[in-house]
Amino acid sequence: MASAVEQLKEHLAEIADLRRASAVLGWDQQTYMPPGGGKHRAQQLATLSRIVHERFTSETTLRLLDAAEPEVAALPETDDDRCLVRIVRMDYERARRLPNDFVANRARDAAISNQVWREARRANDFASFRPHLAKMVDYARQTAEYYGYQEHPYDALLDDYDRGLTTAEVRRIFDVLRPAQVELLRAIRERPEPRTDFLYRDYPEAAQAEFSLAVAADFGYDLSRGRLDVSPHPFATSFGRDDVRITTRYDRHFLPQAVFAVFHETGHALYEQNVSPTLDRTPLARGCSNVVHESQSRLWENVIGRSESFWRIYFPRLRERFPAALADVSAEEFYRAVNRVQPSLIRVEADEVTYNLHIMLRFELEVALIEGALDVAELPEAWAARMKEYVGIVPPDDRDGVLQDTHWSSGSIGYFPTYALGNVLAAQVYATALEQRPEIGPALAEGEFAPLLDWLRERIYHHGRKFLPQELVRQATGRALEPGPYLAYLRRKFGALYGL
Amino acid sequence: MASAVEQLKEHLAEIADLRRASAVLGWDQQTYMPPGGGKHRAQQLATLSRIVHERFTSETTLRLLDAAEPEVAALPETDDDRCLVRIVRMDYERARRLPNDFVANRARDAAISNQVWREARRANDFASFRPHLAKMVDYARQTAEYYGYQEHPYDALLDDYDRGLTTAEVRRIFDVLRPAQVELLRAIRERPEPRTDFLYRDYPEAAQAEFSLAVAADFGYDLSRGRLDVSPHPFATSFGRDDVRITTRYDRHFLPQAVFAVFHETGHALYEQNVSPTLDRTPLARGCSNVVHESQSRLWENVIGRSESFWRIYFPRLRERFPAALADVSAEEFYRAVNRVQPSLIRVEADEVTYNLHIMLRFELEVALIEGALDVAELPEAWAARMKEYVGIVPPDDRDGVLQDTHWSSGSIGYFPTYALGNVLAAQVYATALEQRPEIGPALAEGEFAPLLDWLRERIYHHGRKFLPQELVRQATGRALEPGPYLAYLRRKFGALYGL
Repeated sequence: MASAVEQLKEHLAEIADLRRASAVLGWDQQTYMPPGGGKHRAQQLATLSRIVHERFTSETTLRLLDAAEPEVAALPETDDDRCLVRIVRMDYERARRLPNDFVANRARDAAISNQVWREARRANDFASFRPHLAKMVDYARQTAEYYGYQEHPYDALLDDYDRGLTTAEVRRIFDVLRPAQVELLRAIRERPEPRTDFLYRDYPEAAQAEFSLAVAADFGYDLSRGRLDVSPHPFATSFGRDDVRITTRYDRHFLPQAVFAVFHETGHALYEQNVSPTLDRTPLARGCSNVVHESQSRLWENVIGRSESFWRIYFPRLRERFPAALADVSAEEFYRAVNRVQPSLIRVEADEVTYNLHIMLRFELEVALIEGALDVAELPEAWAARMKEYVGIVPPDDRDGVLQDTHWSSGSIGYFPTYALGNVLAAQVYATALEQRPEIGPALAEGEFAPLLDWLRERIYHHGRKFLPQELVRQATGRALEPGPYLAYLRRKFGALYGL
Repeated sequence: MASAVEQLKEHLAEIADLRRASAVLGWDQQTYMPPGGGKHRAQQLATLSRIVHERFTSETTLRLLDAAEPEVAALPETDDDRCLVRIVRMDYERARRLPNDFVANRARDAAISNQVWREARRANDFASFRPHLAKMVDYARQTAEYYGYQEHPYDALLDDYDRGLTTAEVRRIFDVLRPAQVELLRAIRERPEPRTDFLYRDYPEAAQAEFSLAVAADFGYDLSRGRLDVSPHPFATSFGRDDVRITTRYDRHFLPQAVFAVFHETGHALYEQNVSPTLDRTPLARGCSNVVHESQSRLWENVIGRSESFWRIYFPRLRERFPAALADVSAEEFYRAVNRVQPSLIRVEADEVTYNLHIMLRFELEVALIEGALDVAELPEAWAARMKEYVGIVPPDDRDGVLQDTHWSSGSIGYFPTYALGNVLAAQVYATALEQRPEIGPALAEGEFAPLLDWLRERIYHHGRKFLPQELVRQATGRALEPGPYLAYLRRKFGALYGL
């Protein structure tokens, strides 16, 4: 007779297989599915997600958890099985709080709302989207009530993206970042702008793909267990550590778009490809949380991929692929161009200095919506006011304002802060790595990424979801998440770039 | 309260979604999956297939069937719901006869056997594959015993591919075809061979794809609900009528390979794209049987795609894409080249005259294996003897002999005859269409395929799996399956080509 832990793992392995099957269907939907396939695909995904939810919240899970807990109680705290039982218990208690009907209705209305949003954004028509957004906010508030919370209903929503993160903690960090980043931006705006004309020249897509993928492989992305495809919005997805895929999109006349998207998604993929194989087919076989995941995409995209030492080595290789477009450009000029700081309307196109300001705006609006202090109808005005205050510009319309992101349309409220905290954590992780392994810095200067990847694998990637985000951050860096290293990184890098 | 039929349909719809999800995973496995992904994919597919089998053979299915039967009893015989209940009852009774453990063990051993076969074929090593093949034959014999049969255990196996088909019926048809096809081949071999040198010139893959896909679209393949990709072995697959995909493989220096594979798979795809939408998400929402499906792939590939009138119109278009390679070739020469008859070792490369002879050989060996009259160890010798007798040549090794097909390695015994009967049915269906709709012939001569497609849609495609294969054949053609039209087709076409 198999032990209860073994039975639990077998039960969870089937659920993991179904989740992975859903992920394959989602990947195909974004990459190759013909336009007609949408209705069938929605049905297939809905059925899979219903079965996953039914199985995970079933009495079987509860019975096996109850039986497994005493079996693992005496194991070391870092033992795979003990961590599994602990995290699954938390997942289970949380999942059971949402009634099945509520989950199904929310998913159905989110799909409708997302469709309306697509059309509303295209037509720059906030009014048509407003009632759907109001409904999504209602669902979020109800979700928070079902989950329960100690201090703030928004805490319950944050939990879905980074378990244990609180509104107070986000505020504490943002309150340090905001004035510092606004001030840094102000100072940069007084300095001359770098040359960027060459970024908009002719860069055939195939060569963009070859260069980006060569860099991804140099970072350590194992292409025998991954691949790069094209999708409207870049993403990374895992069907198991040995099949982790990324996508990008190409603009033939704007080189940075595809290249940095590939670096970004490669960061996510490195994480997923390096989760311990002993966790395979368990709920721990993936990245720890949104914040930790985003810290890795941002680390490889920005801290490494937009660094001076990186382009010192890679710019000559880039120029080999695009000799005409880059003939009159130096590595130094290229490095400056891809780090240009400029107030912009669109979050996903923002530079490192302004990016978090876009997030803070969204965070504040979300909290106000959940508190009921702000009505959905007031959003465009509130958006414009904060854009003016933080970034210094105001959107000419809702398309490039409140309608720009997909998240709210499908009810993802509480997600945005994890982007900014990912930036913050990236700097903290990187500073720790350099400190603990002195050979990492010189290796990077030579274009060797393996020492950094090894450290990250050992400290973060390997553990998958075994620990809570705060635990993992403390284990990996010796400290709780803090804004200091990130501000130091920004000031050092952009101070040098702009001669501040 | 929903009727029992509605409840049954909802239950079956979820199962259909899971089957379609499996099909997406299978498509990805053959097209884009990175090499490392195999282990995860096998787990995902095994879990999906286990859940599908559990759900379909559950007491729920039985209870809903029992309740639905009286509800549909008074409906017309051709009513969707009445057909559904009837066919699902048959499927259910059949599926329940195989013990779950038996199905799981067979699937596991089939996967192992298939892997061993791949290596054995590569290494031309029949001995290493022999014990696995013996096991697969044992499974087939046990399967037949579980299913039960009236006359011959092989009947029970045929049922999996064409319900109601019997060994005696296959023999009856093959006994007519064999001497006639052997004699036709003999006569052709005494005539001069057509010129074929130009088929082996340089044909860049992209242009092959464009031409093939343009023809597929002309046939009626709706590319907003389908697409073409590359895989090691061409196939068609459906995730619902609005997402039906095909694949091919390219040989830059042998034009016919990709082109006719696309025509063939387009035939399968036309069938699936035109199943009635009222059957969607039911077990009837796919082609009727292997024989009927293959009749459609062969009809579009051979009867249409290798016809003189087709190339009279399409050869100039082909030459536009490959002006250098086809500069010194006429439409007539091209037509003759793609219809060259030549004894060959490999079934999938065989021409229309020899193809069925390859099938008859396999059928006879399969029946002898199931009867116990032939031992697996004797297969290579028996293979050589029949090749000599029917096709006139003998394989130099097992790789191009008994090891060439994948079917036996995964336990598919009873499948091969459906290929030959598909050829036979294609001719019968085509003859009926020309007879019943006199405008079809002249339209085809003008390169207009819509009248033929309309007739096929109405008579065959639309019905999905509502009727048993023999019923559908009789409804569509007014007669049972018979070898006459096929032999007449072969004699007319190849008689003209070879001046017999």
